[in-house]
Amino acid sequence: MVSVGVLGATGAVGQRFVQLLADHPYFDLTVLTASERSAGKKYRDAVNWRLDLPLPETVGDITVTDTRADCLKNVDIVFSALPADLATKVEADCAKAGIGVCSNASSHRMMPDVPLVVPEVNADHLRMIELQRDAGTDGFIVTNPNCSTIMLTVSLAPIRNFHFTDLRVATMQAISGAGFEGIPGMSIFDNVIPYIGGEEEKMERETLKIMGTFDGSEVVNAPFSVSASCNRVPVIDGHSMAVWLDIKEPVETVAKAFQNWKCPLKDLPTLPEKSVDFMTQQDRPQPRLDRMKGRGMTVSVGRLRPGIRYIAMGHNTIRGAAGASVLNAELICDRGYL
Amino acid sequence: MVSVGVLGATGAVGQRFVQLLADHPYFDLTVLTASERSAGKKYRDAVNWRLDLPLPETVGDITVTDTRADCLKNVDIVFSALPADLATKVEADCAKAGIGVCSNASSHRMMPDVPLVVPEVNADHLRMIELQRDAGTDGFIVTNPNCSTIMLTVSLAPIRNFHFTDLRVATMQAISGAGFEGIPGMSIFDNVIPYIGGEEEKMERETLKIMGTFDGSEVVNAPFSVSASCNRVPVIDGHSMAVWLDIKEPVETVAKAFQNWKCPLKDLPTLPEKSVDFMTQQDRPQPRLDRMKGRGMTVSVGRLRPGIRYIAMGHNTIRGAAGASVLNAELICDRGYL
Amino acid sequence: MVSVGVLGATGAVGQRFVQLLADHPYFDLTVLTASERSAGKKYRDAVNWRLDLPLPETVGDITVTDTRADCLKNVDIVFSALPADLATKVEADCAKAGIGVCSNASSHRMMPDVPLVVPEVNADHLRMIELQRDAGTDGFIVTNPNCSTIMLTVSLAPIRNFHFTDLRVATMQAISGAGFEGIPGMSIFDNVIPYIGGEEEKMERETLKIMGTFDGSEVVNAPFSVSASCNRVPVIDGHSMAVWLDIKEPVETVAKAFQNWKCPLKDLPTLPEKSVDFMTQQDRPQPRLDRMKGRGMTVSVGRLRPGIRYIAMGHNTIRGAAGASVLNAELICDRGYL
Amino acid sequence: MVSVGVLGATGAVGQRFVQLLADHPYFDLTVLTASERSAGKKYRDAVNWRLDLPLPETVGDITVTDTRADCLKNVDIVFSALPADLATKVEADCAKAGIGVCSNASSHRMMPDVPLVVPEVNADHLRMIELQRDAGTDGFIVTNPNCSTIMLTVSLAPIRNFHFTDLRVATMQAISGAGFEGIPGMSIFDNVIPYIGGEEEKMERETLKIMGTFDGSEVVNAPFSVSASCNRVPVIDGHSMAVWLDIKEPVETVAKAFQNWKCPLKDLPTLPEKSVDFMTQQDRPQPRLDRMKGRGMTVSVGRLRPGIRYIAMGHNTIRGAAGASVLNAELICDRGYL
Repeated sequence: MVSVGVLGATGAVGQRFVQLLADHPYFDLTVLTASERSAGKKYRDAVNWRLDLPLPETVGDITVTDTRADCLKNVDIVFSALPADLATKVEADCAKAGIGVCSNASSHRMMPDVPLVVPEVNADHLRMIELQRDAGTDGFIVTNPNCSTIMLTVSLAPIRNFHFTDLRVATMQAISGAGFEGIPGMSIFDNVIPYIGGEEEKMERETLKIMGTFDGSEVVNAPFSVSASCNRVPVIDGHSMAVWLDIKEPVETVAKAFQNWKCPLKDLPTLPEKSVDFMTQQDRPQPRLDRMKGRGMTVSVGRLRPGIRYIAMGHNTIRGAAGASVLNAELICDRGYL
Repeated sequence: MVSVGVLGATGAVGQRFVQLLADHPYFDLTVLTASERSAGKKYRDAVNWRLDLPLPETVGDITVTDTRADCLKNVDIVFSALPADLATKVEADCAKAGIGVCSNASSHRMMPDVPLVVPEVNADHLRMIELQRDAGTDGFIVTNPNCSTIMLTVSLAPIRNFHFTDLRVATMQAISGAGFEGIPGMSIFDNVIPYIGGEEEKMERETLKIMGTFDGSEVVNAPFSVSASCNRVPVIDGHSMAVWLDIKEPVETVAKAFQNWKCPLKDLPTLPEKSVDFMTQQDRPQPRLDRMKGRGMTVSVGRLRPGIRYIAMGHNTIRGAAGASVLNAELICDRGYL
Repeated sequence: MVSVGVLGATGAVGQRFVQLLADHPYFDLTVLTASERSAGKKYRDAVNWRLDLPLPETVGDITVTDTRADCLKNVDIVFSALPADLATKVEADCAKAGIGVCSNASSHRMMPDVPLVVPEVNADHLRMIELQRDAGTDGFIVTNPNCSTIMLTVSLAPIRNFHFTDLRVATMQAISGAGFEGIPGMSIFDNVIPYIGGEEEKMERETLKIMGTFDGSEVVNAPFSVSASCNRVPVIDGHSMAVWLDIKEPVETVAKAFQNWKCPLKDLPTLPEKSVDFMTQQDRPQPRLDRMKGRGMTVSVGRLRPGIRYIAMGHNTIRGAAGASVLNAELICDRGYL
Repeated sequence: MVSVGVLGATGAVGQRFVQLLADHPYFDLTVLTASERSAGKKYRDAVNWRLDLPLPETVGDITVTDTRADCLKNVDIVFSALPADLATKVEADCAKAGIGVCSNASSHRMMPDVPLVVPEVNADHLRMIELQRDAGTDGFIVTNPNCSTIMLTVSLAPIRNFHFTDLRVATMQAISGAGFEGIPGMSIFDNVIPYIGGEEEKMERETLKIMGTFDGSEVVNAPFSVSASCNRVPVIDGHSMAVWLDIKEPVETVAKAFQNWKCPLKDLPTLPEKSVDFMTQQDRPQPRLDRMKGRGMTVSVGRLRPGIRYIAMGHNTIRGAAGASVLNAELICDRGYL
């Protein structure tokens, strides 16, 4: 078993990490960090547990430590649910201290030697870990993208071999993406907020790196443009998005690519049976009905129409955050980077 | 005063008509029609009034008549809130009987001699009434477009002189658009439904007619393509939409066009002070905060970004339905077509 | 294995039955009935599956039959999710045909020889099956109460030995209780509907029968009065209720009764570890966080205050409907009534 | 015109005050206070205006001052929307400085010489202002109760002459009551929170003072008990409540009292045509349909049933907060206390 910890274990994404790691076949959850105020308390007492599955008993007994690299003893991998400002230093310190960091934070995603990985799309980017090691880091940092970028890039995996140069995406994102306290009820009830700070830039930037080519020394960005328009809607979990691609092939050909796609990975504990579920019902995917498919790890694609237009949807705090980091860590173990 | 009636006065759009016409400076509301079952009852007893403003007292006393042209006595204009299947025959019968029909139904919108009018955009299309008269109709039919098409075309009015060929629009539409009983709570709570039957086709077709040129005998469609992706979101009133246009001018130039636009109309009772409110706050427009601007007749535009991308939003049952028909009728009176 | 069927398998409660029975240790689900229109189709094609767990594959292959007793072959128990008007005859026909009926319908609940059972409260009422057999019925009908009555009576189990004569209960009920199509979104968004047809009468009547004493020939109603005020709130699943009881003992004594209560049953597959979860956090129970406890079978009780006042909450379509019938059926098997 | 100000003008209740006072026949709004950070800015720039009616232009130009009594020049009355901790000192300072304070804060409500007034219920309690003046205060403090207490006491006005000793009330309260930022969307979507800090105590305490008798020197509490169970539900505006009273008269007699009730006040600008609207439809009142009656000042009562049970509902930030204070101030002017 690989000994693991969670940085920032009491927040929305932190709780998802705890849930996903509580009974994991590869990982033994031994360390939970939070703010200084919570350090020293049992996790059960430090956390305001808000998932609808009960807090796993054994995890509740773990004593929370401060979020500092020197508080992490005997840990092989840490999962980071830290806010970006904190993550910059703490994650770097951890990597220097020989720990593997699988991070959901945005701080290091665009660093030239840090892989930004969606396993079904660019597992080979993990080779960038070697760049970090060449630079003298004992551990490593591997990041996963922003939640809406994950849904988008997973949905592109089956059709990436079609030629296109222009991608437009309008998102309808769930409120859980902003954390438990992020969006006041008075702001979002009976409403749409057509702005999410930094989100459009992240989608536009991160998609090109993920879909880009790692040539052994750097990532060459994918050769298309991304234009995003991001909206918050009154949905608890599940990011939906309307996508346009200037693929010239007929819609039937694109449909076949979705139907016949084989995931290049297999046999990772968190990998769902279908990473992409291609739906043909006229009114799907829908967040409430489809977000928990594949235990929250499946991205559903539907309403493929000429244009090429389609809808993609996935669970933003599982597939789009904690589950993404855990899947990355499983792949890292599987490929022997630990 | 012009004597007016409402066809289908008990439904969601019918109630909005009643509210807008109850105390109107041009129009005297004298006739309300509904299904045979309601005919003979006082409107007060026939309707399940569900607007949050009280049912106007005098209107409550009107005796409901059956929805047939021969039941309409001494009426100059009827406003039609009928479902499309019923509207086809009833509206044609009314026009033949010498009545002016201002219709929110989709039945006649694409007929070659029926104007599809958004006053701020194509008031001159009203001249098509003459085609109808030339063909021997005593009355006329004038239609307004589908709710989401209205928001889109009003938002285009200030920037229609820029060159563009490719318009994409992803909508986030309110549930009131489907009528009081249209969307079960279980379907839409905590959810997005990425499909609205016929809506994308209507947006794509109607926009080109409205933005087209009437050359005296027919409408030549506007020379650009429209690609729509329509979604239902958990919002009561107010359709939001993310729009992309391939305008090459810099975003500042487009912003100036929005800021400096002068509405070509004035002094109609239902015309708002601003038909387009161009907002520069980073997180607006929002349905709950902005839908009632201009008594529900203003279309708010915001988040103008390079791309060109922007967000448009307006009240779907006022600006996008009943208010649109009433504004058309005011314009018809003003231009002497009655 | 006991061979079982579901009457009315395509509706909201019917789908829950299918989900709970798909992989059950006692029951082998072999028959699914629906309206004539669906008969002959595979269940997969007949149902509009709307639970967030996938439709179990093997169940999807079952061919749906018409809802008539003579269509049920080789079935030991049927679970009834029929509307009351249909249930009256069909359930009686089934019982005559030798089938055990576990019904969620209201039709037979108040019949003098039909047990109305909440296993933790009045398992002994199952002896009323003998009355039915004495009257010549080969099968039997056993009913579970209305959803809100179930939450109330389970919450009373630990404190039923305190003396009280006056029970008041104000409910805040979820929309799923009215079926998938029951409540239009326009009616319940941003709203409370202070009326649920027949619900208050059911709570007042059924509670007294369940808490009553079966003396071998009839049930003597419990000696207290129930006054209910039932409201629909914008919640998907989970009925909450504020309860008052004129218990004179101090609140600490009542708290101890909740804490020390031992469920009189054990080892039934659907019985949760805790039938009553007594919570001491000041703001619990809450539907979204607590409804899935015990796989939806736990009733959570909290906010015990002098008065005696408390809040009870449970999942209305699991504990309050399908799960209740399944638990009854398990008890029936366990006690040898089959 | 009476010159007035608003203390705490940028918050949820403060904005309602501004809206109600912007065009008032008695009051000239000249002063707006906020935190030190906002002082010196135009109100337009200091406030994040979130009502769906536009910010009145002239009010937007007012320069915000710090929330201190010595910053208030030439003001006759201030309306207080301050949090309780701030209100204690600032309101007392204002009264000492000769200003009349009409407060929505809870700080002084239970002070023996401070009237807690609902005009339709206990206008005569305003005589307590004389106690304050006898004690040497130049100005005065008059308070209105907590939002849910207001709905309850207004609903009791028509039936207060019936004998009862035991009042139970279960509330279903809107999220706006907690301020714009008070309730995270993640907490209340698809949920009920059965706890509102301090609310039950306020209802129990304040109701007895308001319904009590002022004998010239002190208020003798009303001779009944109140037991409240307060819940937050996913509604934007409008507090609903289920009320039980042990009135022994038949329900028809109580209905007549509601129907025949005449409000003891008249001709105040904010007083609605009906302070109590007694509804006989079986499913009313409902927050979304009924909260704006009487421009938000009417309390709707319905579902009167034996028990005696009924439902009361009113707009919590208008009738239940800002509108209550403004109505108090109008009464104060009318009775010559200024």
